[in-house]
This record gives sequence, structure tokens and C-alpha cells, in this order.
Amino acid sequence: MTKIAILGYGNLGRGVECAVKNSPDMELVAVFTRRDPSTVKIQTAGVPVVHADDAEKWVGKVDLLIICGGSATDLPVLTPKFAKLFNVIDSFDTHARIPEHFANVDAAAKAAGNIAMISVGWDPGLFSLNRVYAASILQNGKDYTFWGKGVSQGHSDAVRRIEGVKNAKQYTCPVESALEAVRSGKNPELSTREKHTREVFVVAKEGADLKKIENEIKTMPNYFSDYDTTVHFIGEEEFNRDHSGLAHGGFVIRSGSTGWNNEHNHIIEYSLKLDSNPEFTTSVLVAYARAALRMKAEGVTGCKTVLDVPPAYLSALSDEELRAHCL
Amino acid sequence: MTKIAILGYGNLGRGVECAVKNSPDMELVAVFTRRDPSTVKIQTAGVPVVHADDAEKWVGKVDLLIICGGSATDLPVLTPKFAKLFNVIDSFDTHARIPEHFANVDAAAKAAGNIAMISVGWDPGLFSLNRVYAASILQNGKDYTFWGKGVSQGHSDAVRRIEGVKNAKQYTCPVESALEAVRSGKNPELSTREKHTREVFVVAKEGADLKKIENEIKTMPNYFSDYDTTVHFIGEEEFNRDHSGLAHGGFVIRSGSTGWNNEHNHIIEYSLKLDSNPEFTTSVLVAYARAALRMKAEGVTGCKTVLDVPPAYLSALSDEELRAHCL
Repeated sequence: MTKIAILGYGNLGRGVECAVKNSPDMELVAVFTRRDPSTVKIQTAGVPVVHADDAEKWVGKVDLLIICGGSATDLPVLTPKFAKLFNVIDSFDTHARIPEHFANVDAAAKAAGNIAMISVGWDPGLFSLNRVYAASILQNGKDYTFWGKGVSQGHSDAVRRIEGVKNAKQYTCPVESALEAVRSGKNPELSTREKHTREVFVVAKEGADLKKIENEIKTMPNYFSDYDTTVHFIGEEEFNRDHSGLAHGGFVIRSGSTGWNNEHNHIIEYSLKLDSNPEFTTSVLVAYARAALRMKAEGVTGCKTVLDVPPAYLSALSDEELRAHCL
Repeated sequence: MTKIAILGYGNLGRGVECAVKNSPDMELVAVFTRRDPSTVKIQTAGVPVVHADDAEKWVGKVDLLIICGGSATDLPVLTPKFAKLFNVIDSFDTHARIPEHFANVDAAAKAAGNIAMISVGWDPGLFSLNRVYAASILQNGKDYTFWGKGVSQGHSDAVRRIEGVKNAKQYTCPVESALEAVRSGKNPELSTREKHTREVFVVAKEGADLKKIENEIKTMPNYFSDYDTTVHFIGEEEFNRDHSGLAHGGFVIRSGSTGWNNEHNHIIEYSLKLDSNPEFTTSVLVAYARAALRMKAEGVTGCKTVLDVPPAYLSALSDEELRAHCL
């Protein structure tokens, strides 16, 4: 049994706990938290919640630590720090800062003789894999990534900071006609506005100026001004009933051509429709935990990404079983 | 530049030729044939066509040989034979015989210190990858593979063997309502008949008994009797105009659940829509040629499959470029 520990018990930490429960070859041995451990109630019976400052005492008792934190400020600090103690995995998702994060984690993990895997999830993660497979195969072609329909935490937070807003949820929605144009093989050039729309559900405070809130949302630079945005004001009851989920998804499509004169077109499409973004993301993390430890057993140390991992390593089945039943 | 040779110059061989032309890091150096080389005209200027019996003289001048042949009788003989001389790749697609083929090729390649990669293409191949990724991530779930709409060569051949048939083409078509049921997360149990239909276009010989031909097709065991089949009799001109293509495609879908009580459902879908089955298949072969040689350079020998290959190895980009731009 592979001994997994979790650092950080929010949506992702809870997702890892579920994914480990669903993995017959894994067991949860500890949850590390930066909060007061007595305030953190987990679901798995008999597993201790330990302060993160005491994690060092668990060296030798944990095969791999799954680090569950935000990419803005948590993971850039936590992953290099804990890669000195354990084999680790994170879901770092700030695309532009991946090379820098990779370098920091690689140095820490190599010095300690550990393996570390960063940016595991679905984007970055499964979507990245599909971009690389598709572009390597259809060398003449064009890539498209669409997200949604799904909840963007960052955009929801931005709306909640507007004066007069009590609560808010933002959905990113792919434009169906843009998807169809891509699938038709036309290789369209699509602007930001043509690819996605944004839909916002707002619970306003009593007496708030709704017109002003709507205008502030729609004109917010970076977040909304480049998109067609629809704003709905709803009551708190409806908000809690219909907008508590964390569904998400998206599409990676490559349209490309082959032939002596590039006369034949092909479409490769990968899509996800997820009821729970954090639970799906952590299911990916747990599969890559299995792979990371297999690579470690072969002597691999330092930082790796999903692009470095042979697909067979994710499976609990043997190579012989995979060739006989899945190939 | 990677030096590629082709064995067998039919639809697949021509596809490899196009894919190598489209790969800036590769060049075609020879085409081996079992026919009289003077009868084989290829498209690439200045590349020799050589009898397969003389292939041995090319040892040292070829980095990797792509073996283009049928899975029934060609590849089981050719791949082990040529793995003794060269690094090789094939597209062996008889799923049930993969373990046996793997063992034969592995022994030959290991003895010679070569690398061999078998069953590369889209099914087996890209579809296999997606089955393994999806099942490793959504451990509680169900897999579905649909093929088409596309031409089945084996079924077309079977119809052509019927008395009174001059020419025939068979299309395998996924049943749209079955696809929708799977995508809805209902995890339906689907019979063979519920998943695919078959559509046959027949050019009959003059004076042939059309009723009899239609009945023979629809009741043919293994090929048609388990399916709803539609038969169209058409003229030779229409046949040549509308049914000369080799389009294909399909869908791999996994529907699975996560959560403490498996309360959240997720759909992972991978699909291909291909104008030319042989040209797409050979584009996959050429990408894996690049990967095989990278593994060989690291000292790997013996037989491998797509499940053993890190995705980054398929790309002509460096690991740094991939992390910065594709992850």
C-alpha cells in the first residue's frame, strides 16, 4: 500500500481524500495543515491531522505528499520547501510561471534525492498532454482550447470585491458556434470575445445600485471587458440552491492536415465534462502519485511534469495486463 | 536529420512518405518492397526503391524502419524479422494477438540491441492511451469505444466476395442516441446492435439477383448478422465519385464518478474525425519514430508500445520549450 499524506485540507485536500479512498493500492496516513489541527475535521477514520510545522517528523512514514494550495502564493513556497522532505505532487496552474516554479522545485527535489511532479491536473495536465500528442502527430495544424461551462474562482472573487455585492459566481462558457467552426476544419482565427462568454450570478446587498454593479462588472479590465458578459441578479436562496456546485470542463481541439499537398484534414478533440472540478483534479493527482513513485523506484529524482510520464505508469495494472486488455 | 526507411509501399507506405515530408527533422532514405522495385514509383525525388531482400545492405544507413503491412499475415513475420536489422515500428492492430506479437518482436529486438514499437496508430494507439489515462484517473467508471463513421476494409472485402458483387464499400456508423446516452453519464449497457450500424454501397454485376445479395450481406455471421445493416445498390460512376475515400474516426469515452459516496459524475471524451485513415495512422507512426529513437539513445532496447512512451518524446520541441509553451 502506498502511503499518501495531504498538505492543506480545503476543496483539493478533501478531493485527494476521496480519490485515495477510491484507490485500492493507496492509503491516507496523515493530513498536514497550517491551521490549528484541532479545528480540522477530516472524513477518514483514524488518520491524524498534524500541524505542517511537524511534518518533518513524518519523513520515512510517507511515500508521497500531495500539496493542496493556491498557485498565487502557496505553492511557489510550499512545493520547494516540502520537496526537501518528501516526494511531492502539486497542481500549480499559473502557466506563465511554470518554468520558474519548475527550476525551484527541481533544485530542491534533486538536492534531497526526491521526485517532485508539478502542474498536475487537467489544465495544466490532461489538456497539456493532448496539446503535445496532437501537435506532434498533426504537424501542420492549429490548436484551440475552450473552457467551460464552468465556475471560475478568480472571476467570482473579483465580482465579490465590488461594492454592494454580497455573493457572486462567474461561469465561463464556450461559444457553441466557435466550437462548430473549429470542428468543421475551417481553422478560424478567433478573438477572445468570439471564443467565450461570461455569465455572472450576483446576490446584491439591500439597497445596492444594481445598474452600477452591472456596469462595474462588464467594464472590469482583464476579467470582463474583452468578453460579452451577462449579469443576473438573484436572491440568496436561489443562489445557494443553484450555484453552489464546482462543475467545469473544456475542450482541446487540433485541426490539421496531411497528404503530399496537405489535402486531407483531421480533427482531434479531447473534452472533459466535470461535476466537480476539485475532485476530478485530485483524481488526476492521485494517478500521478502512483506514476511518480514508480519513476522514483527506477532512480528518477528532481522535478517532472505529466509530459515526462509514460501512460502505463498511471495504472495499477501491470504492463502485461495493459497490453492484453487496454491496448 | 533522422533517416527513415519504409517497408511496403501501399496506402500506409504512401502515408509515411507524406508524414516524413511534413517532418522538418526527418528524411526518407529508402523504400523497401517485396515487389519488383522497377514497378514501384514513389513521390520523393532521389530516394531509391530497393528489394526487401537487399534491406540488410542498408544496416547502418537507416535510423528506423517503418513497416507497412497487414496484421493478418505480413506483420507477424516482417516485424520480428526486420527488428533483427533495424529499429522498427509497426501498426499491428489485431488486438487479441498483441501479447504474442509483442513477445516475438521483443525477443528479436533485444537480441539485436534494437528498439521496436508495435501497434502504433489510433486503435490500437491513441485510443489505447486514452483508455489507460481515463481508467487510471476515474477508477470507478465505465469505458466505451465507438468507431466511425468510417470505411471498414475487412467488411468491404467480405461483401466483394459475394456472388454478383462487382464492387462494395462498407461504412461503420456509431449510433448517435447511444453516444448521447453515454455522454449523459447514465452508464448504459449497450449491445453490439445498439452501438453501431453498418451501411453498404454495392455495385452489382449485370443481371445479378439484388434481393439475394442484400440477404447474403445482412445475414453474414460475425460481419453483419449482429448489426442493423442498410444496403444501397448504386452505379459504378456514383461509386467511384462518392465512395473512394478512406475517411474514419471514432470516440473513446469514460464515464466515472468521484466523491466520498461517488456522488459526482465526470465524462472524459476523446474523438477523431479523419479524412484519411492511412495518412493519419502514419502520422502517428512517424511521431513515435521520433520517440523510439530518443528512447534508444537512452539505452532502451526491445519491444515497446505507446503506453511506454513519455508524451514529450513525440515532440520535436525541447522539454524546456514544451514546459514554457504547451504545459
